Amino acid sequence: MENIVPFKEVVQKYKAVFFDAYGVLKNHKGLLPGIQNTFNLLIENDIDYYILTNDASRSPEQLAEGYLANGITAVTPDRIISSGMLAREYLQSKVKKGTVTYLGTANSAHYIESTGLKTMSIQDVSLDNLDHIQAMVFLDDEGFDWQQDINKIINILRQKNMSVIVANTDISYPVSKTEISIAIGGLANMVEDIIGKTFIRFGKPDAQMFMFAYEQVLAKKNIRKDEILMVGDTLKTDIIGGNKFGLDTVLVLTGNTLPLQADLKIASSGIIPTYICNSVVVNEID
Amino acid sequence: MENIVPFKEVVQKYKAVFFDAYGVLKNHKGLLPGIQNTFNLLIENDIDYYILTNDASRSPEQLAEGYLANGITAVTPDRIISSGMLAREYLQSKVKKGTVTYLGTANSAHYIESTGLKTMSIQDVSLDNLDHIQAMVFLDDEGFDWQQDINKIINILRQKNMSVIVANTDISYPVSKTEISIAIGGLANMVEDIIGKTFIRFGKPDAQMFMFAYEQVLAKKNIRKDEILMVGDTLKTDIIGGNKFGLDTVLVLTGNTLPLQADLKIASSGIIPTYICNSVVVNEID
Amino acid sequence: MENIVPFKEVVQKYKAVFFDAYGVLKNHKGLLPGIQNTFNLLIENDIDYYILTNDASRSPEQLAEGYLANGITAVTPDRIISSGMLAREYLQSKVKKGTVTYLGTANSAHYIESTGLKTMSIQDVSLDNLDHIQAMVFLDDEGFDWQQDINKIINILRQKNMSVIVANTDISYPVSKTEISIAIGGLANMVEDIIGKTFIRFGKPDAQMFMFAYEQVLAKKNIRKDEILMVGDTLKTDIIGGNKFGLDTVLVLTGNTLPLQADLKIASSGIIPTYICNSVVVNEID
Amino acid sequence: MENIVPFKEVVQKYKAVFFDAYGVLKNHKGLLPGIQNTFNLLIENDIDYYILTNDASRSPEQLAEGYLANGITAVTPDRIISSGMLAREYLQSKVKKGTVTYLGTANSAHYIESTGLKTMSIQDVSLDNLDHIQAMVFLDDEGFDWQQDINKIINILRQKNMSVIVANTDISYPVSKTEISIAIGGLANMVEDIIGKTFIRFGKPDAQMFMFAYEQVLAKKNIRKDEILMVGDTLKTDIIGGNKFGLDTVLVLTGNTLPLQADLKIASSGIIPTYICNSVVVNEID
Repeated sequence: MENIVPFKEVVQKYKAVFFDAYGVLKNHKGLLPGIQNTFNLLIENDIDYYILTNDASRSPEQLAEGYLANGITAVTPDRIISSGMLAREYLQSKVKKGTVTYLGTANSAHYIESTGLKTMSIQDVSLDNLDHIQAMVFLDDEGFDWQQDINKIINILRQKNMSVIVANTDISYPVSKTEISIAIGGLANMVEDIIGKTFIRFGKPDAQMFMFAYEQVLAKKNIRKDEILMVGDTLKTDIIGGNKFGLDTVLVLTGNTLPLQADLKIASSGIIPTYICNSVVVNEID
Repeated sequence: MENIVPFKEVVQKYKAVFFDAYGVLKNHKGLLPGIQNTFNLLIENDIDYYILTNDASRSPEQLAEGYLANGITAVTPDRIISSGMLAREYLQSKVKKGTVTYLGTANSAHYIESTGLKTMSIQDVSLDNLDHIQAMVFLDDEGFDWQQDINKIINILRQKNMSVIVANTDISYPVSKTEISIAIGGLANMVEDIIGKTFIRFGKPDAQMFMFAYEQVLAKKNIRKDEILMVGDTLKTDIIGGNKFGLDTVLVLTGNTLPLQADLKIASSGIIPTYICNSVVVNEID
Repeated sequence: MENIVPFKEVVQKYKAVFFDAYGVLKNHKGLLPGIQNTFNLLIENDIDYYILTNDASRSPEQLAEGYLANGITAVTPDRIISSGMLAREYLQSKVKKGTVTYLGTANSAHYIESTGLKTMSIQDVSLDNLDHIQAMVFLDDEGFDWQQDINKIINILRQKNMSVIVANTDISYPVSKTEISIAIGGLANMVEDIIGKTFIRFGKPDAQMFMFAYEQVLAKKNIRKDEILMVGDTLKTDIIGGNKFGLDTVLVLTGNTLPLQADLKIASSGIIPTYICNSVVVNEID
Repeated sequence: MENIVPFKEVVQKYKAVFFDAYGVLKNHKGLLPGIQNTFNLLIENDIDYYILTNDASRSPEQLAEGYLANGITAVTPDRIISSGMLAREYLQSKVKKGTVTYLGTANSAHYIESTGLKTMSIQDVSLDNLDHIQAMVFLDDEGFDWQQDINKIINILRQKNMSVIVANTDISYPVSKTEISIAIGGLANMVEDIIGKTFIRFGKPDAQMFMFAYEQVLAKKNIRKDEILMVGDTLKTDIIGGNKFGLDTVLVLTGNTLPLQADLKIASSGIIPTYICNSVVVNEID
């Protein structure tokens, strides 16, 4: 194993930190025990922090509630950057009139709608009347009938050319210690292959997620990119995305990358984190 | 447009013909009007014929019934080579004991079962008891709950390593003049991408379909490959598969390849049929 | 054909314009005749402009000389954003010590070196002494022996894990009216496939190119993204990249996308420009 | 590690064996010491055998000479099935007149020419006179200038539509204990990606290699597929190809798949050999 270093030592060299959420701050059981200490350390040392998450199923407000319900007050909505936010911003600026049809729950659409956009669930779209549909957005893998509605999408896109936005690049996500589910990004890949069109995707490792977060940082304080640390559990999203944006990166071993696999995965992928840490949890007494 | 030649003239140069079914002999409205004349011509000229179809949803007997019900007696079960037959043969020879779990209708599994194999619908499999499951087969896009059962498959394959067979390489199929559905091959591609494993696929353009048909031809008469004509409506399955196997090929314009697109599709794909014909239907008076 | 609109009318609705270079401002014969009028129009109307080009073979200074030599004084080095600039910035911030080995001409490396980085041509690297090599960069398809040096690269990357940067995402580029050459991005794709690693790529359609240009704009004047127009001849780089970044886009028909193919390419790709214009050249008398 | 069984025990259950060459019978140092014993065992037990190799650089006669030069008389030309043979058969049956242009050495072309085909090295083709060129074949990674001639190929295929045959599916091959070279299949993949056409490939894991060998077996004796054993060192070519064709398979650990990686590679690929053996070499005294 490459040298593993304590997160507490690493993080204090930086002026801001970007965290991935799942596998870093929380896992299938909830928030990592002791995570409060990590936020205390950041606040005491005046280190700015943001959470960058590939999620379009809930608004930042709803995502923050999950932290608050577990006693973490440090993660306020303004500290959460989700791929859904980028999709929302895109739709707001590019769809000037008409309706956006979506795959996902009513709740996921509600967040998009808050921009003033008119949305319509894929179930309610009629193939005979597509004139008012201006764009399509893949939000969540829940909230629709996969067989009926994915086939419907394919036939809509064959009949009418429109921009298609995928609000989460992930192809799967964990639902328990051992089980995963297909994410909306995985379904979007299948549809894209079948109809041969190119969709617009938002989420890590794409630079736009990092840029959005960096703009929040800059609004408060003038910090260079090499003064920011990206912390994630996944080489192919968090680490390569952070590296490419010019940030230093930490791979933690509390999620997707198991301790025994880390060296092999780094060697075979060629994606090299600046540091490896066991966990972001810091011991109070440390 | 490249020179279009009459099918009647072309076919009489050959001793055997392989037909694709959908888009060649039939379309969304049923069998092409006048198709009986084509079979009459073949029989009169002692030209052997087979139908090669990417289909694992029904047995050759059931597929032949569809022709018979429309008055075509020339298409008997022994003249139909389906990708399902190859999958069935594979399972029979390679799975010696235990159970094969399947995605598809009970009917599609019934045909697989007729080899003596024990099958179990994906719905009935328990993730807590996979010991007896020896292989998995993708048969049909109907007969199961896409969301629940595709996620189940992914978790089964993460827990237990087994051979996975895809009994139809097609990613979509037509359901009406303007609409298509995702085929089981399209769903299999998505699962393969998500779990990173390599499945075993049967169907055109793979050589095994052509080899299976050629063996039927040879069992009756000693014919060289270059005395056989493959007729299809799709460059990427029928024509490239036939070409590679060493057959001469006819692209017909009654299905997937529209008359106005034929030249462009040939030029852009680099897949070149020996002939282009409007249709396999021949005029009685010709 | 979708409605074609005059560029002169379109551009005056915006406060800044981003141009692709090849196929938009110039072609295999050199700069488009009358292109000076376009720059005059921009300057008269106080519209800011930048050229975004996937090119790592020359520095912005050298690229600007090509315009100046043809009498265009409007394209100064500070108005050129190249993928090579992003690669250079990346290497500067991430490679703190040691040597960067490169594929390309000495001239392409000279630009990278100007940051103070130590570079070494792939020819001069010894497989027996890789300790000092910290990163690899694909700069140009000229300047090395393809057979010998691409094989060398593969063996270097199998022996030592390091960051690999591809400074131009294009897979081919035009060299005359009818001929193309493989670009360094095409060679990098082959190497990546063979060794199974993930490289870091810079160039359109990636958001980082647009972000870099947008930062230049913002340094002068506070302009919103929807006040900027991206002009390109290629759907898969210029247009989708501009769209995703939140800009309005113009497809011009002077390069990669021929007038007769434009509608078909838009329909089949699902990449939809805001406008289609014949050319950016404006008639003085208009 | 899965149970490792002695090859000597396994092979005696079968009536015929197909061997991969490199990594199974030989490695970078030459033939495996003691390989003569293996052929003795086969001959004594009346087990038929063939060597299936992805190689189009030499004729079966030349390949057999390599064994003979090392004292192995058991590997005669008729026991070698190469991907080059399939390409040669294809060209012979499908190219009726005109010239086939090739990438490779004069020697590799000589074998193709022996069918009576007219061949022309890519160097000698003129872009101004392509009328007589009827097909293109990728034979070997040696014998031409990569930069000049691969770019030439791309421009030929943009100007004239023709069948393109890749006579070896491998993307790389070992040249010493630690080094590899890009194989002609790897170059062909790059060209295919850049021009967007579909080439015709010959070699394992494609069924045609196995079918060709099986036809040789059947010409002598009536043997079922499940009485044949395929032995290889590579999961993605030898083992999945053998499995799919209905053969039992042995993974040996003398080549591509290192002993410590075997279980992990089987689990992560889902490609499951019937047996794992250390080596095909059998001890005389066993």
